[in-house]
Order: sequence, then structure tokens, then C-alpha cells
Amino acid sequence: MEKLDHVHLSDDGSALVILDQRRLPLHREYLTLTTAQEMFDAIYSLAIRGAPAIGIFAALAMSVLAQRMPAERPAFDEEFRKTADFLDSSRPTAVNLGWALRRMGRVLTAHPAAPVPELLALLRAEAQAILEEDVAMCRAISEHGLSLLHDGDAVLTHCNAGPIATSRYGTAIGPMILGAQQGRKFRVFADETRPLLQGARLTSWELQNAGIDVTLICDNMASIVMKNGWVQYCFTGCDRVAGNGDTANKIGTSGVAILAKHYGIPFYILGPSSTVDLSTPTGADIVIEQRDPDEIREKWYAEPMAPEGVKCYNPSFDVTDHELIAGIITEKGICRPPYTESLKALFE
Amino acid sequence: MEKLDHVHLSDDGSALVILDQRRLPLHREYLTLTTAQEMFDAIYSLAIRGAPAIGIFAALAMSVLAQRMPAERPAFDEEFRKTADFLDSSRPTAVNLGWALRRMGRVLTAHPAAPVPELLALLRAEAQAILEEDVAMCRAISEHGLSLLHDGDAVLTHCNAGPIATSRYGTAIGPMILGAQQGRKFRVFADETRPLLQGARLTSWELQNAGIDVTLICDNMASIVMKNGWVQYCFTGCDRVAGNGDTANKIGTSGVAILAKHYGIPFYILGPSSTVDLSTPTGADIVIEQRDPDEIREKWYAEPMAPEGVKCYNPSFDVTDHELIAGIITEKGICRPPYTESLKALFE
Repeated sequence: MEKLDHVHLSDDGSALVILDQRRLPLHREYLTLTTAQEMFDAIYSLAIRGAPAIGIFAALAMSVLAQRMPAERPAFDEEFRKTADFLDSSRPTAVNLGWALRRMGRVLTAHPAAPVPELLALLRAEAQAILEEDVAMCRAISEHGLSLLHDGDAVLTHCNAGPIATSRYGTAIGPMILGAQQGRKFRVFADETRPLLQGARLTSWELQNAGIDVTLICDNMASIVMKNGWVQYCFTGCDRVAGNGDTANKIGTSGVAILAKHYGIPFYILGPSSTVDLSTPTGADIVIEQRDPDEIREKWYAEPMAPEGVKCYNPSFDVTDHELIAGIITEKGICRPPYTESLKALFE
Repeated sequence: MEKLDHVHLSDDGSALVILDQRRLPLHREYLTLTTAQEMFDAIYSLAIRGAPAIGIFAALAMSVLAQRMPAERPAFDEEFRKTADFLDSSRPTAVNLGWALRRMGRVLTAHPAAPVPELLALLRAEAQAILEEDVAMCRAISEHGLSLLHDGDAVLTHCNAGPIATSRYGTAIGPMILGAQQGRKFRVFADETRPLLQGARLTSWELQNAGIDVTLICDNMASIVMKNGWVQYCFTGCDRVAGNGDTANKIGTSGVAILAKHYGIPFYILGPSSTVDLSTPTGADIVIEQRDPDEIREKWYAEPMAPEGVKCYNPSFDVTDHELIAGIITEKGICRPPYTESLKALFE
């Protein structure tokens, strides 16, 4: 049975254990979570992050929390819905969170007469299935991405869509990690990804661990790296793909895509098909999460690096227009424009 | 006589005093510099920065250092050239540094028979003239830039081209600072400008001091700010403008210009005509300074934010293609494309 290091049940199954991603790369610390509030906080504070990893986390979280819910239905169901809604409110933009919670909820509706102890076993099996499907999905996404690459190619990536953002392999850097396991050689330029530095702290750490030639750059250096002719592809993950291909991903992704278009470099989105949300017609319909200004003004620093109280705008995501995207790579293959057709075909 | 707070001679004229820009915005500390090595270090370490401010600094520095050179010519001249070459090597990209040093050097060639004490007075007067001309230039640049703006407009800027990067007013943010003094209302979005955070530490501090509505953003948020329709202009400074209009400025400037073009927002360069270097035909001829990887990995942080020893690429500047630039604003007015003609006309 698949068991991940960075998000797994405790040995007795009564708690959820996660690698605290906020402390990487210097500190390898694990958190043991037992309450819904702790789990909400883990998502909100980014101790766990990455759309697929959040989905797995939420599924495992519900299977843990369900153990302490009322022993009789429908009181159990009511408590389950309330808790799922609460976790779902921790981050509005990531579609996998709601997707995984709804999928766990369907276990209840699919078994309206099952007693609670049986439900608990079904929920745990469903969470495990979500995890194992994610491993298979990431592997398939990585294979499809890898089919584009030639040895010696360099890929620019933004934020972190690696193993710890998913289950294994990752999405955006999955092709290079899978390729490295097969003895192939690629280079990666990793945007550091302000303000939370997922590229510096996580992506460059994961790539270094995987033995891949990685160069860390500040976000504003992507333009000169592309101009230098150093990268052949841009690969990023995604938090929500609208029906027309518009894609919400980490703040700055749309800028990378615009630069890539300017320099004639193909820009690809990689993510599981669960990230595609046909009920969201276009990017204009995606809610963008706003975060604390202190993430810009003082987080990580030895002392604040901006004047006290200076106004900040701190959106966590932006939307990349579908016209800037050369392809959207899911476990089912590579979708090409027009995305209204190719994305719809994923679900037929 | 103009005397700047952020770069001036000590009362007895034997030392150079500067506001240490590395310590802003939390700490207002001054450095007293007496040796060429200290002055080299002040430029290299960015205690003093901003192309025009570096020019003023270098001129004042040479007038201080000249006091301790041989009392007889040509030994004085030889020492003067050696010292000027040494200071010139501290930052290869900024044209004003070499420009100011050459201008100081011409005092020697213009007065081949003058005794050293007379030269010292002439050098001090020349440095003062460079300073006062810069104030007049910044004022004129600000007026030309201000002529583009309407009340309520918002301008996005990158890095710092404000008063402390020049003499007074600044270049890129000069129009808004001059406008504010005249009671006009503008908004500014300031890119924080990694890795050295000049936008967070200096630009937002200067704008806040000037009572201007400023919003600090991470560099990778410029795309969403432009997409939101929040900015009407992009204004940046420049470190070297080639004969065809290609412009070297702080790393990331070219990315801002590409985004601005994508969103249909006019992108302007503001700087004194001394930044225009007709002897550099195109941007491809501009040397780009590379800096220490630890500026990306660990500078400012409470602890390193990237894996130990991870490779970094840390160029200090990039070159913005002239095709992305709507206009280049100098003290003589607004140059428009084709720049090969309009820039040449500046010197006729």
C-alpha cells in the first residue's frame, strides 16, 4: 500500500502526520494533526501545500476526523458535511481541495444505510484510493511531459509542483524527475517564487535531492534567462483550469507565460484532470485568494524589509490566459487548443 | 550651494559622508569614507546606489581623494588616473560612474600647467557642478514625465530611481514626487525588486515620505496588477542606454516592459542624457554585472532560504529591447522611436 513520507496517517490511524513544508529546506520537521482546526491551519498556513497534495491531505484528514464524529447517522453525516465545509474554506482557489472533500462525501451518499463503523472503513479506503490514483496520475503526467523533452533541454518552472506538492514525481517537475530516474539529463531553472519562496525552498531542494542540474533565480530573472536562449520549455503546475483553458496557478505564472510567448518558448501547464473545472467557464470566474501583507513586508526576514504599514497587494494566484498556453498535460495526455474542446473531451 | 543629505562632503571637506542605503528603511545610518577602498566598497556593496547618485558620489570621492595625492604633477595625475580606474571597476554596468570620473579627469587635462592646490579647488568645483546639474536634470526629467500624467493615474515602477538614487526628485518616480509637491494625486505600484529589495526598502519608503499613495508588490505580481487595469504607465530608471535605445536597468526591467507591451501599457525609461551612451551601439554590447549567489540564497533572511550550495544565476541588470520602450525621457525632453535618430539628436 502506498505510504508517502510527507503526508500519511499515524501508525494507529488516529492522526495525520505531515512534513512541515514551511520549515524546508533547513529543517525536516513533522507535524501530528488530530483536530479539524489543526488541519485547517495546516492548509491555510501552507504547512501542506500543492493542489494534489492538499487533495490527498483533505481526504486523509476526513478519514481521521470521521473517527471522532457521532456514532449514529444522520448525526454523523451532518457533522461530516460541516467539517468538510470548514476545511474547504481554508483555501478558496485550489480545486482539488473541494474535489477530494466532495469525493469523500460521496462515500456517505453512496452508502445511505451503512452503519458508521463500516463508513469509517470505506472513507479510509477512499482516501487511500485518492492517494494511489494521484501517484498513477503523476506518473502518467510525467511520462507525457517527458515525451516532449530531448536530452540536454532546460525547463523553467515557477513555484513548486514537485513530489511534496503531489504524491510522487510531481507534475511540473515530474518529467525531469522521472527522466533523471531513467538516466536522462535535463537542466531546470527554478523561479524562487516570492513571497513564500516555494521555488527556492522546495523546488530547488527537490531537484537537488533528485540529482538534477538546477539553477535558482529570482522571479524577475526569468526574462533574461529566456533571452539568453537557455530554456526550451516552461512547465508549471495549476490550481484550477477553467473550461476554456484559462489557468489559475501561483502568482507570477501569467507573467512567465507572457515572457515565454514573447521569446517563442512553449509554455505548458501540467496537472491532474481533477484540476480541470468545467463548471468554471473562464478565468474571470476564478476567485483569487488575497493573503497577509506581512508575507511581503517581513516574513522570513531578520527584520522588516519595507516601511511599517506600507500598503501591499498580495494575491496568491493569477490567471494565465489560455492563448498563452501551448498545451495542458494531464494524466490522459496533452490537451491542445482549442481547449473548450480538448478539455471537455477529457471527461467524455 | 546645493548640499544633499544622502551624499555630501564632511564639514572640513576631508571625507565623504553617505546615508547607508543598505540599512533602510529601518535604520538611518551614515558612513564617513576617507579611502579609495572604502569608496570602492561603498559602491560595490550598494551603500550608495542609483546611476546618477553614483556619478555624484564618484565626483565628490575624487575631490576628497585628490587631497591626499602627490603635491606635484605629473605624479598627481598618475595617481588620479589610477584611483579613477579603480573606482570605475567597482560596477561595470552603470555609465554615470565612468562618465563622472572622466569628467573629473578632464579637469586635469584642461589645466595641464595648474599647480596641484589650484587643481584641488577646480576638482571640488567640478564635483559641485556635477551635483547641481543633476538636480536641474532631475527636475527637468520630472517635469517632462509629469506632462504625460493625469490626476488619478497609477504608475508601476521597478527598483529605485528616486531622490536617493539621484540628487533630488529622482528620475522614474520624480514626476510623481514633483507632482505631489504641486498638490496632484497619483498612485504608484512599486515592485519590491529582488534580490536587493530596492523597491521595498527604498522606493516605497521615499514615496511614503513624500505622501504618495504607494502599493508594494512582489515582482511577480506586476502581471496581475497590469491585467487588473490598475496602471496607466510604467516608469523605470536606466543604468545605460545604447545608441539604438536598448536600455540596461535593474534586473527584471525587461520583464516589466514585455508585460506592459502585452497589456498595452506604455513603458517609459527616465534618466539623464549622461546615461545615453552612443559609443555602445546596441544592448548586446552592454556588459552585465553578475553578483554573489548568496544575495539570492540568504541575504536579509533570518536563515538561508535555499538548499546549501544550490547554484544561482544572479545578474544585476538586464537589457530592455528598444522596441518595448514608448519613450526615453531625459532632461532635454521625450525621445521617441526611432531612437537611433532621437538619441543622437540629444547630443547635437
